[in-house]
Amino acid sequence: MENENRNSLDLGYANLDLDRKRRTGAGEVIFGQSKDSEQIAGILTGFWNSGEKNVLVTRIDEEKAEAVKALLAGHSLADRFQYFPDARIALLGQNAPADGLGPIAVVTGGTSDIPVAEEAARTAEFLGNDVIRVYDVGVAGIHRLFDKLELIRSAKVVIAIAGMEGALASVVGGLVSAPVIAVPTSVGYGASFGGISALLSMLNSCASGVSVVNIDNGFGAGYQASMINHMK
Amino acid sequence: MENENRNSLDLGYANLDLDRKRRTGAGEVIFGQSKDSEQIAGILTGFWNSGEKNVLVTRIDEEKAEAVKALLAGHSLADRFQYFPDARIALLGQNAPADGLGPIAVVTGGTSDIPVAEEAARTAEFLGNDVIRVYDVGVAGIHRLFDKLELIRSAKVVIAIAGMEGALASVVGGLVSAPVIAVPTSVGYGASFGGISALLSMLNSCASGVSVVNIDNGFGAGYQASMINHMK
Amino acid sequence: MENENRNSLDLGYANLDLDRKRRTGAGEVIFGQSKDSEQIAGILTGFWNSGEKNVLVTRIDEEKAEAVKALLAGHSLADRFQYFPDARIALLGQNAPADGLGPIAVVTGGTSDIPVAEEAARTAEFLGNDVIRVYDVGVAGIHRLFDKLELIRSAKVVIAIAGMEGALASVVGGLVSAPVIAVPTSVGYGASFGGISALLSMLNSCASGVSVVNIDNGFGAGYQASMINHMK
Amino acid sequence: MENENRNSLDLGYANLDLDRKRRTGAGEVIFGQSKDSEQIAGILTGFWNSGEKNVLVTRIDEEKAEAVKALLAGHSLADRFQYFPDARIALLGQNAPADGLGPIAVVTGGTSDIPVAEEAARTAEFLGNDVIRVYDVGVAGIHRLFDKLELIRSAKVVIAIAGMEGALASVVGGLVSAPVIAVPTSVGYGASFGGISALLSMLNSCASGVSVVNIDNGFGAGYQASMINHMK
Amino acid sequence: MENENRNSLDLGYANLDLDRKRRTGAGEVIFGQSKDSEQIAGILTGFWNSGEKNVLVTRIDEEKAEAVKALLAGHSLADRFQYFPDARIALLGQNAPADGLGPIAVVTGGTSDIPVAEEAARTAEFLGNDVIRVYDVGVAGIHRLFDKLELIRSAKVVIAIAGMEGALASVVGGLVSAPVIAVPTSVGYGASFGGISALLSMLNSCASGVSVVNIDNGFGAGYQASMINHMK
Amino acid sequence: MENENRNSLDLGYANLDLDRKRRTGAGEVIFGQSKDSEQIAGILTGFWNSGEKNVLVTRIDEEKAEAVKALLAGHSLADRFQYFPDARIALLGQNAPADGLGPIAVVTGGTSDIPVAEEAARTAEFLGNDVIRVYDVGVAGIHRLFDKLELIRSAKVVIAIAGMEGALASVVGGLVSAPVIAVPTSVGYGASFGGISALLSMLNSCASGVSVVNIDNGFGAGYQASMINHMK
Amino acid sequence: MENENRNSLDLGYANLDLDRKRRTGAGEVIFGQSKDSEQIAGILTGFWNSGEKNVLVTRIDEEKAEAVKALLAGHSLADRFQYFPDARIALLGQNAPADGLGPIAVVTGGTSDIPVAEEAARTAEFLGNDVIRVYDVGVAGIHRLFDKLELIRSAKVVIAIAGMEGALASVVGGLVSAPVIAVPTSVGYGASFGGISALLSMLNSCASGVSVVNIDNGFGAGYQASMINHMK
Amino acid sequence: MENENRNSLDLGYANLDLDRKRRTGAGEVIFGQSKDSEQIAGILTGFWNSGEKNVLVTRIDEEKAEAVKALLAGHSLADRFQYFPDARIALLGQNAPADGLGPIAVVTGGTSDIPVAEEAARTAEFLGNDVIRVYDVGVAGIHRLFDKLELIRSAKVVIAIAGMEGALASVVGGLVSAPVIAVPTSVGYGASFGGISALLSMLNSCASGVSVVNIDNGFGAGYQASMINHMK
Repeated sequence: MENENRNSLDLGYANLDLDRKRRTGAGEVIFGQSKDSEQIAGILTGFWNSGEKNVLVTRIDEEKAEAVKALLAGHSLADRFQYFPDARIALLGQNAPADGLGPIAVVTGGTSDIPVAEEAARTAEFLGNDVIRVYDVGVAGIHRLFDKLELIRSAKVVIAIAGMEGALASVVGGLVSAPVIAVPTSVGYGASFGGISALLSMLNSCASGVSVVNIDNGFGAGYQASMINHMK
Repeated sequence: MENENRNSLDLGYANLDLDRKRRTGAGEVIFGQSKDSEQIAGILTGFWNSGEKNVLVTRIDEEKAEAVKALLAGHSLADRFQYFPDARIALLGQNAPADGLGPIAVVTGGTSDIPVAEEAARTAEFLGNDVIRVYDVGVAGIHRLFDKLELIRSAKVVIAIAGMEGALASVVGGLVSAPVIAVPTSVGYGASFGGISALLSMLNSCASGVSVVNIDNGFGAGYQASMINHMK
Repeated sequence: MENENRNSLDLGYANLDLDRKRRTGAGEVIFGQSKDSEQIAGILTGFWNSGEKNVLVTRIDEEKAEAVKALLAGHSLADRFQYFPDARIALLGQNAPADGLGPIAVVTGGTSDIPVAEEAARTAEFLGNDVIRVYDVGVAGIHRLFDKLELIRSAKVVIAIAGMEGALASVVGGLVSAPVIAVPTSVGYGASFGGISALLSMLNSCASGVSVVNIDNGFGAGYQASMINHMK
Repeated sequence: MENENRNSLDLGYANLDLDRKRRTGAGEVIFGQSKDSEQIAGILTGFWNSGEKNVLVTRIDEEKAEAVKALLAGHSLADRFQYFPDARIALLGQNAPADGLGPIAVVTGGTSDIPVAEEAARTAEFLGNDVIRVYDVGVAGIHRLFDKLELIRSAKVVIAIAGMEGALASVVGGLVSAPVIAVPTSVGYGASFGGISALLSMLNSCASGVSVVNIDNGFGAGYQASMINHMK
Repeated sequence: MENENRNSLDLGYANLDLDRKRRTGAGEVIFGQSKDSEQIAGILTGFWNSGEKNVLVTRIDEEKAEAVKALLAGHSLADRFQYFPDARIALLGQNAPADGLGPIAVVTGGTSDIPVAEEAARTAEFLGNDVIRVYDVGVAGIHRLFDKLELIRSAKVVIAIAGMEGALASVVGGLVSAPVIAVPTSVGYGASFGGISALLSMLNSCASGVSVVNIDNGFGAGYQASMINHMK
Repeated sequence: MENENRNSLDLGYANLDLDRKRRTGAGEVIFGQSKDSEQIAGILTGFWNSGEKNVLVTRIDEEKAEAVKALLAGHSLADRFQYFPDARIALLGQNAPADGLGPIAVVTGGTSDIPVAEEAARTAEFLGNDVIRVYDVGVAGIHRLFDKLELIRSAKVVIAIAGMEGALASVVGGLVSAPVIAVPTSVGYGASFGGISALLSMLNSCASGVSVVNIDNGFGAGYQASMINHMK
Repeated sequence: MENENRNSLDLGYANLDLDRKRRTGAGEVIFGQSKDSEQIAGILTGFWNSGEKNVLVTRIDEEKAEAVKALLAGHSLADRFQYFPDARIALLGQNAPADGLGPIAVVTGGTSDIPVAEEAARTAEFLGNDVIRVYDVGVAGIHRLFDKLELIRSAKVVIAIAGMEGALASVVGGLVSAPVIAVPTSVGYGASFGGISALLSMLNSCASGVSVVNIDNGFGAGYQASMINHMK
Repeated sequence: MENENRNSLDLGYANLDLDRKRRTGAGEVIFGQSKDSEQIAGILTGFWNSGEKNVLVTRIDEEKAEAVKALLAGHSLADRFQYFPDARIALLGQNAPADGLGPIAVVTGGTSDIPVAEEAARTAEFLGNDVIRVYDVGVAGIHRLFDKLELIRSAKVVIAIAGMEGALASVVGGLVSAPVIAVPTSVGYGASFGGISALLSMLNSCASGVSVVNIDNGFGAGYQASMINHMK
């Protein structure tokens, strides 16, 4: 059901697993949400012992990260473990070297979308991409977006993240020639219905070249953006 | 249940009816959708006989308008009856003289929104307003909107009409200093759900100064815009 | 994504920013919900230092307001900061002088709607409007509404606020000649679905001249009402 | 699944069937919607032959009624069969004598609600009740409702029927001391969602003494109103 | 918005208020949910001082009731105040004498529905009705319902309360000749969606003579049942 | 996407295909809905030529069946093709011999559910089962169900089919000791929402031993019932 | 409303109760969710005293189970009471001997589905079935499923449990010849809407032989699977 | 609102328009759905006269295409106009030469999804891509998918198209290392709700590297796939 160990699957069919590895040039990713600190510490230690030194843990809150850190204390990997509270992400080891076609832009409507944006950005960095962060450029003050337009256009893939009415994806989609991955967020209140309003907006985008991932799914956007950025 | 005869109500409380008349300086409005041609011809004749020479009929399709015209043939009001197919509106008599604070802008995302836009525009004109029509300036090609921005800004009230993702309302709302009345339309397919996507977008607009009316309710937007444009 | 700093945007297009300022004659507004006390105190201090002495903070609960107050202690702006718990609003400095076309009426169905109503009322006052508060006049006891009808009719704009079945907007819309901005609230239980029932009622209002904002969006209603009340 | 033959069930438990008959003092009711003209003609003939001379057929359109009439031609019951197009109801025989506690008022918001209202009214008349029809008194022009208030108050049970925002039920519920049965109708467009908006409004009514039946279910309201009007 | 003081409204139109009083022969009812203990204690004292000695408070949890009791300590009404935790109801004074046409049956599908059932039952008793309680007779073990059928049939009005699939209302509606008021409850999990499943079932009941109130609205059912039980 | 050829899959993994064949002892099934008459005639001929003489075609209306028949004219299989309009099913060849553990009961709430019921029944018969049809025993007249209870109890599997409120599944589920497969139908109007109300009821059934298939999915119910009836 | 005592009902019709007992050869089941520890301890003691030594309690959390254990201390049944935290189930006494047609496979998409899976598995074991647990074989890494395919195929009934997109049911349904009972879980976030996404997927499964129970209803799946596994 | 002329926008900002042209190396695209034959013929002629010889028209049914053809008769472009009924697409001129990184695979669950698939495939071909069509490989018969797996894996981008439960996207997403664009279709009945079930499944896909476009939006998927396939 979960996303964990997505890169390390021994699929047993052809050598898909190898393909994926080769393409991303990256380590492992664990979906931390439904795992407790003991489980996470155990998985990290297991990877380390098997030679996999670089692991990303998503959806892990600060308290749980602290608990993992405590459990790793004394182990040789302990000082290679760090936590990024904005992204709710922990990193063991280091990011893959940035070897994509170009930078990926992560653009948000507001500051409240930053946790999702950072999840996307850190994921992309881990998988070997440079990331341009352009936050708080929602369409209600569209000049802020235009101020950053050349920067956004320098990216090979754009991740557009917004809650409430989610209009950012359409506007950005009309302004750039790169593929846009839209991420609706649960930011809002009342008729935003936990992200449904933004989700529907993005699915109905009248701009071409926009596709959508699940509400708040920063990881998914960062992962697919990296895939696209490593096309060859 | 219906909106018909909205201006002619003898409310019996204070002299509200008089107030409404005085404010709009306009004739009567009939909601034509659930009335057949005989009923509409009868109401028009009745108004005419009672001295009300100017009447707007909304939500009347071409076939029904032809039938009304045939029924009125020979009557003295017959050559004062005209039909506007784009707006699905028939007009007996003439519009009130434009005496508002300034023009009202009617802005649409696409050409498919024009029927709703024309309903709003014709309603506003009937009630005594100049109307600026700015159609097909959806946010996926935002330069088209910017090309018309000074024109839109010259209006005292803006009606923003869009289907699909409805992002137009937020973008316009952030660019003008006038009140914006947003009208979601049922234009779209799939996850537009008959206008729900656009409706939710507009209700969640992150721009200030935006309020919303029912899906496809061009009349309601034109009516309230006229109210605001006649503030004194 | 958020509404903060809505009045101070340097839009870089024409001089929209100036227009907005000139029109409202008011200070700045901050959307406090997703900001912590340090952020809010910092923004307030920043505005103060840059010469903006009047700032409204919406969606700030009592505990956070206390924390902001503590952080501001000793600063010259400290004794110009006050909190209104009913409105969940904090005010630095003072309201703009009331210079609208007339008063704005804020009308509620019940006492549970008062937090939303006070958000609307305080916003309107901050932006330079007199406000008439008419609370707890829901349609189930319609005589209470009629008792206050002349008072409501003296307003230039009416904000109608109700939860549950939201019928207030339609009834008030039929009784006044001023524009009505309807605010559905999340008050209710069971099939009120957090305000959806009231929202749908208001969107389907059979009265003309009614438009709608998001569930519980007192700020949005107060802001647009002020816009309309400053038409010229 | 259907409502047909509701009064003639031989329930086999105690003598419920007898009770129901005795209470309503009325004939049989057939739900005509999913039956073709042959089936309906057959059921009518069967009832007639078994001695039941009075039968109501609901949800039968004009074309099907004509077909039934043609099938009955020559039979002794043929000239006792009549059709009421407004109510989409056919009647064989006659109504039960009106022997309730008093009249039942059937009140609608608009003229488009009349088909549902007539279904309720004809059902109540068939089951032995006098009916007061008060149509087109929607809350947007509340003076029309007040003009008829004493008439409505003279009823022992009130059926309140409305589409769009369905506010009529709450307003009427607050003005009368009789039980109110509310019927949402599918009248409306856009966010009325085929009657959902009116349904939710009525379920959330802030007036006491209001209960609700299914969308467009005029029969159900007339049936229960008759039950209440025959309490003893 | 709220239901409070529903019986004491001075409606100012004819003498509706008097009518309601005369009919119910009962005291006042307060909707306690959104009021704090100070407000409730104040309203109770106010009623008492104005001569109204009998007051029902609905939707009041045990903690709040204790707080009200503490506030009333020393006042002459203190020992006339009692709390019924099962019903989440507090009573000042006493019920009206039972003078209805007969008993009201309150029937539930399960034991989890009892809080809603007790709200209905206590409300009906307060308004002058005898109540027959038949709990936990859900249709999955239909023999339990049949065991109590004669008892249920002895009632003049039946309140059918169920969560989950809400089938009880249809089954009971087919077995009794009295009007049935159905109350969906939020009991259930998963696809019960907080009572929506039961609500839809009850609205679609294929039994005649069933109407529905809001989810968990025991008060509303008890109130209307009392109205019907006092028909004359 | 479709169900066609479900039994003839050469899965290539182990010998699943063989297993399925052996278990059902039956011919092929084609989902006719999205196929035109030419396609269906072609598939039938193909099966025939390859030795498969028994084929069931579901979701085929009368007109399309006639067209298929015309296309097959002259072919040796032509007189082995028959159509069952009630079930919207065509059969080439014959049913498998009934070799299940016992009969399968197909029970419906009303007569409008019969098309779905016949689809289930004909499917089960084709797959080698005896079927007991018990139609029009909805819970509003529960004595009709009890009259047939022993008959229903004689079945090894029960398929309970109902629209509107779908209560039949719960009641039947509580009365039999066999597994119950519930089929919601789209029969109803208003708040039945095309079968959603019945679907939710059945999913929330408080009876044990009930599972549910898609709205109107008579085939699916018949297929799984046959699977269960051939357990060994 | 609740499922408790499902096996012990004295239905009074024929000897259904006996049938059920005989079929399952198992003890009693209590739905613990809405019962407190005193109630549960009381029911357990009551069963014990009446001779029923084997009872399963579902939906009971660890804290409540501890409280029950404390209440039973000193009683002769105390050391026959055990708790399974993974399944949120308590067991008094022991499982029925496994006498089904073969094993039941319980298959999950992820590790987060395990609580629901264990509820299903423990229920099936209590009712006299061997259970094969195959967890964390979601379709995104389909090789894990294929690795266990022979094991799954050895089962007579398969319970497929998944959240998020719920695709497991369709894939498994296409690969096995046994009946599949699908259980959607509330595992997921964003557009999984608490299990709705998985529920809809499973209802729309394009594989034959799949039926569905309520979201998170492990008990219901285990119960029906046992029924099917005891067919004879 | 519409997608027409998406490639030819003179955005006036930097030289975005040029960029898009250069990237796609393709002609113009017109969204034909809301345009009549005269409008389409006019736009085609206009493009032709201005030098643009290659134009794709999407969402155009056969009848409308015939009408366009008739209108173009005699014009020099007439014999360069062809219609593809499976795709509901008309083509003026020719596709751009295939110059992408590799082929794009278009995969469907069933044959009913082919119209959407062909819209995607023809769009991609027009924009300069080779397309591999793999139709009718739904997950209920997963061996059909595996039979084509190497073929699918040879693609640089995969478009996965399915209705009903939409599981195809997750399964394919887990088996390939290319980015997957998922297209839900409105194929299905009952609880498929016009594509909502498939849409939710795809948004909740537990496979990484999957993003989603609107229901039935074959064009959008083909367009973005082409973008990705031309990354450099």
